[in-house]
Amino acid sequence: MSISIPKTQKAALVVSSDSPILFKNDHPVKQPEELAPGECLVKMHCTGVCHTDLHARLGDWPLPHKLPLVGGHEGVGEVVAIGANTIDCPVKIGDRVGVKWLADSCLQCEQCRKGLEQCCAKAKLSGYTVDGTFSQYVVSYVAHVTPIPENLDSQEAASFLCAGVTVYRALKYSQTKPGDWVVLPGAGGGLGHLAIQYAVHAFGLRVVAIDTGAEKKELCLSLGAEKWIDFRETKDLVKDIKNATGGEGPHAALVSAASGTAYEQAVDYLRPGGSLLAVGLPGQAQISASVFWTVVKSINIIGSYVGNRQDAHEALNIASMGKIHCHYVSKPLSALSEVYEGMQQGTVAGRVVLKMD
Amino acid sequence: MSISIPKTQKAALVVSSDSPILFKNDHPVKQPEELAPGECLVKMHCTGVCHTDLHARLGDWPLPHKLPLVGGHEGVGEVVAIGANTIDCPVKIGDRVGVKWLADSCLQCEQCRKGLEQCCAKAKLSGYTVDGTFSQYVVSYVAHVTPIPENLDSQEAASFLCAGVTVYRALKYSQTKPGDWVVLPGAGGGLGHLAIQYAVHAFGLRVVAIDTGAEKKELCLSLGAEKWIDFRETKDLVKDIKNATGGEGPHAALVSAASGTAYEQAVDYLRPGGSLLAVGLPGQAQISASVFWTVVKSINIIGSYVGNRQDAHEALNIASMGKIHCHYVSKPLSALSEVYEGMQQGTVAGRVVLKMD
Amino acid sequence: MSISIPKTQKAALVVSSDSPILFKNDHPVKQPEELAPGECLVKMHCTGVCHTDLHARLGDWPLPHKLPLVGGHEGVGEVVAIGANTIDCPVKIGDRVGVKWLADSCLQCEQCRKGLEQCCAKAKLSGYTVDGTFSQYVVSYVAHVTPIPENLDSQEAASFLCAGVTVYRALKYSQTKPGDWVVLPGAGGGLGHLAIQYAVHAFGLRVVAIDTGAEKKELCLSLGAEKWIDFRETKDLVKDIKNATGGEGPHAALVSAASGTAYEQAVDYLRPGGSLLAVGLPGQAQISASVFWTVVKSINIIGSYVGNRQDAHEALNIASMGKIHCHYVSKPLSALSEVYEGMQQGTVAGRVVLKMD
Amino acid sequence: MSISIPKTQKAALVVSSDSPILFKNDHPVKQPEELAPGECLVKMHCTGVCHTDLHARLGDWPLPHKLPLVGGHEGVGEVVAIGANTIDCPVKIGDRVGVKWLADSCLQCEQCRKGLEQCCAKAKLSGYTVDGTFSQYVVSYVAHVTPIPENLDSQEAASFLCAGVTVYRALKYSQTKPGDWVVLPGAGGGLGHLAIQYAVHAFGLRVVAIDTGAEKKELCLSLGAEKWIDFRETKDLVKDIKNATGGEGPHAALVSAASGTAYEQAVDYLRPGGSLLAVGLPGQAQISASVFWTVVKSINIIGSYVGNRQDAHEALNIASMGKIHCHYVSKPLSALSEVYEGMQQGTVAGRVVLKMD
Repeated sequence: MSISIPKTQKAALVVSSDSPILFKNDHPVKQPEELAPGECLVKMHCTGVCHTDLHARLGDWPLPHKLPLVGGHEGVGEVVAIGANTIDCPVKIGDRVGVKWLADSCLQCEQCRKGLEQCCAKAKLSGYTVDGTFSQYVVSYVAHVTPIPENLDSQEAASFLCAGVTVYRALKYSQTKPGDWVVLPGAGGGLGHLAIQYAVHAFGLRVVAIDTGAEKKELCLSLGAEKWIDFRETKDLVKDIKNATGGEGPHAALVSAASGTAYEQAVDYLRPGGSLLAVGLPGQAQISASVFWTVVKSINIIGSYVGNRQDAHEALNIASMGKIHCHYVSKPLSALSEVYEGMQQGTVAGRVVLKMD
Repeated sequence: MSISIPKTQKAALVVSSDSPILFKNDHPVKQPEELAPGECLVKMHCTGVCHTDLHARLGDWPLPHKLPLVGGHEGVGEVVAIGANTIDCPVKIGDRVGVKWLADSCLQCEQCRKGLEQCCAKAKLSGYTVDGTFSQYVVSYVAHVTPIPENLDSQEAASFLCAGVTVYRALKYSQTKPGDWVVLPGAGGGLGHLAIQYAVHAFGLRVVAIDTGAEKKELCLSLGAEKWIDFRETKDLVKDIKNATGGEGPHAALVSAASGTAYEQAVDYLRPGGSLLAVGLPGQAQISASVFWTVVKSINIIGSYVGNRQDAHEALNIASMGKIHCHYVSKPLSALSEVYEGMQQGTVAGRVVLKMD
Repeated sequence: MSISIPKTQKAALVVSSDSPILFKNDHPVKQPEELAPGECLVKMHCTGVCHTDLHARLGDWPLPHKLPLVGGHEGVGEVVAIGANTIDCPVKIGDRVGVKWLADSCLQCEQCRKGLEQCCAKAKLSGYTVDGTFSQYVVSYVAHVTPIPENLDSQEAASFLCAGVTVYRALKYSQTKPGDWVVLPGAGGGLGHLAIQYAVHAFGLRVVAIDTGAEKKELCLSLGAEKWIDFRETKDLVKDIKNATGGEGPHAALVSAASGTAYEQAVDYLRPGGSLLAVGLPGQAQISASVFWTVVKSINIIGSYVGNRQDAHEALNIASMGKIHCHYVSKPLSALSEVYEGMQQGTVAGRVVLKMD
Repeated sequence: MSISIPKTQKAALVVSSDSPILFKNDHPVKQPEELAPGECLVKMHCTGVCHTDLHARLGDWPLPHKLPLVGGHEGVGEVVAIGANTIDCPVKIGDRVGVKWLADSCLQCEQCRKGLEQCCAKAKLSGYTVDGTFSQYVVSYVAHVTPIPENLDSQEAASFLCAGVTVYRALKYSQTKPGDWVVLPGAGGGLGHLAIQYAVHAFGLRVVAIDTGAEKKELCLSLGAEKWIDFRETKDLVKDIKNATGGEGPHAALVSAASGTAYEQAVDYLRPGGSLLAVGLPGQAQISASVFWTVVKSINIIGSYVGNRQDAHEALNIASMGKIHCHYVSKPLSALSEVYEGMQQGTVAGRVVLKMD
């Protein structure tokens, strides 16, 4: 297994929140003999860019990150080295794996023992508390890298590692049943267009897609949404959603919005007993909801944070069944700065995947 | 079965939100032959007074009620008549039953079929949309009156019908396991002191009681709470709660507060994966919670609204096992006005039960 | 609404287990004014024939039925009368409804309150303890008839009322997740071919179909099964099932077999933690399973009996979404005797639906 | 931390199923520098003896074990060494820990990721596939040893590690609610007497204890059982159980019997929707149950196999709350042979704990 590992590599670094992204060609590569037990070195094929990477780049979260920082947490590549003295190793050299947001957790604490690994106090976060996937070689952790199913293309797989897992897990815990209605605000976006497909093909749900513009409308309906509401055209969003679902409102809503209003509206339009799935991570926004109606309507507001290792396996397994596809644009790593600008201006449609060679 | 039913009775009526309670001696009694199918007439032994009755009296909820109104929804009495053509009747004349907040529901709609009877669009609410228990004879509904276990005293049973069911159901759906920690703000109050006992004796939980004053402290600890925090004395409530639970915070909090702050604090002190059980019904308060931390900590905010018929059976069945007792003061019906005043001034300790003879 | 109701009708009766089916043209029709509160009269369009009807006809169950008996419990028709003094009536004259196995339950007992209506001690069973759907007019019960979605053809809807509900509910409680494997012995039969479709389209499962013959193989694969095993050709069924599911065995198996062997095999081939869903109702068969392996593999053996009202709504709602279709043969009521003979000889493929006009 | 580790120790070995237990004084101790990553050395204080140890000693299970074998899997002791290169180690030298049946699992496979660690294909079993606790020093695994709460005596803690965890987990997954009835055949035995206490104090259940003799009757009732049935005196066990639970039968039964009859009876006496919790591990017995009644009564037969790490933490945490106590007899290690003889003759009451010094 003599895979030759270079000493240096290309990488994109956040140096500070107000200086430009630093592109280096001579960033050091941690060598196989330097890897600690449990660590592995992954040679990246490609990596998605997620809104969370922008938060890390801007430093606008109430959670500290390392600096300088290699961002990125939707990487797909090949295991090229594994730390000595690694036990119970579930991967081997040559395996194609994904590096996701939750890079590692202790697997020992109450949260890990209960399967809530993403809430482990010792969790390591790719591209946030440890260097991530915007480089050619990434140090990750054998317990948490996700095997990529054989028939899934690396670029397509990338976005499932974060956007896909996030919407899959939220729907999995939504307490819905097949045939129930789910509302997806932002249905034409990166998370939203995957949520439509998981909702329809994995959970048998009926989807009300909310977004704006003819292009997104066509996308949403083609992916399986039954109803479409353009939020720029509606005069009464709550009423239109209720009408779209036969009058009684949807059984669930998956909300990633940064505005408190979106949560308040959801409590209004949800059917009694309905679930408000909160998955977005805006730095400062507040959930706002009437206590009275939350109680009287028996609404569940469920905070759902990416997913654990099993959620990642399931989300990718389902994607490999061929019914769910990610719509993405492929770019080189060097395009990262312009991608961030586009994200800030809201002009990025779907997901962006950066190729690493 | 010739029980003689008088034509008139004593009753306490809300005539308007700003006129005094009207005590009548000649309020009409609906006669057996006037009862519709599914209705029954219950001769009251006694009735609890709940904070919700005060909302009805003040008219400060975003939900309309009937006027004039006989309030009350924690009544215990004896079935003295059943409407002709009532089918599948689960009670018979002479049975001792409870009249609870949810007086009736259709048992046919999606919500009823799923067991969320309290969210039935046709629900009738005792002492709110239909006349309640502050009178000697109450018209109620055979499908929803709750049989009182033989060994449970009527006065003691009264408060279980609303306060007891409310806290029991919330804990039942709290996703906790035996040995988990639950925080009970207001632990020395009407709901709180029952919540301590259900938490400890029915669910095997460990309780952090929060309230104020030496008397409530002693009550809470005597009922089984392991830890006590006086909210008037603590300098950092969140920190004190975390310390009381071994540093990681409680697995659940049962909040009935009228202030948004209580919800925000709960998201702060709850352990990751924890449940915030919202059971109070303040007219105007807003839940306020950081989206970021609700998601990152995977918090569930669960709106829990009284309970269905099965919850009521279970709450009373558990009470009849003898481990849970309601602390109440017994008064005559004529004391209702002063009870309301005491509630508004916050000087009522425990529950009040009005005797009807 | 003056719908004219005839005094007599065509009906097929079981008179005794060893005399032929009696076809009458002058069977009395219960008149609208004779209906009790809660009853309704339904004019049948068509009715499915289920294996359970054969058990009633043969009298080979350890559960007594009425005699003489009009069998049948997969009927679709139109409500033509409703009993006087019926309260909270969820249907109206003219509604198209289904009459299912569980004709009525009390909606008051512990089982009904918990949603396990099919286990109500007062349950009425169509075509078993009360007369069923093999007649032109059927007395049924407003609380339990199932509204038929508008876009679902009556004949197609018929088999969903029993076969569809049965497999839907079993899968709903199977504790599986999307992408999991389910094994369906008898996949080409009446229950099985619906189970394939619910598994794939409602629950996102992967299906191993087990049955025999080229025709059933083609049917199963065309309906969405990924793997096929011909039980007449396999030399080691347990091994073949494990191989078909990547070596570890399926997460669930839906078994309706009359032989104890099928249960023992399932415990062998199921993945640890897997679910054995027992849905068949053979009169005498015994579940047989190793205690040791049931425990060490943490297998759940789940008895699932038709479904409650909500299950029926859900199963039909999903069918109305257009992804699930019943394969049936249409015949006149007079063909009932030959259908029974075919069932006994095992020569009936798919479901049979009898037209009533 | 220079704890001196001897080179040899006392140990009790199974050499073959038909030769006597071999007591050695010079059994080698694995030295700290020989420990692999993830391993730890535990100096035993004491160890329980479980029926499973007898199966290992007799070799009568359909699962191979190592030979020669140091049995035992309810050990409590102190960590005296941890293997070099152990990562994410949740214990430190000096910690008091328990060594349970499930000595280790990979924490990586589907079963481990889902929390069903006891079904891991790479699971190591104390005193079965790896040497266990019948020696002074035991090699165990940091990921799976269970911290012992401070206020729990070592000897008392021992039996909770297997008997306690087993009954706790079964009850945890029993789908019961507080106030429900559970039947405990063998209630006066090692598992049974702990099951009574977990049922009452952790889950709020009502208990029907089944066993025989005045001494066991007194024990069961003193521990919280409400009803007692002597199986030697009853003429109709099924009827007596139904009567003891108000006529409808219990909601759950925890069965560890080696006879098929016990399972068949449970399907008979359980309330519809009830749970049959199978926890025993007889080598050859078959579950036997009517398919018809299992389905029509919607019975769940749940195989529950010891517990995972979290179950062990929970079971011990609850025990440390002081409401649950193990009744055991303390003996020296040298008494092991006679304990096995007693077990075979059925003369051992409660649990036996062997002291190791």
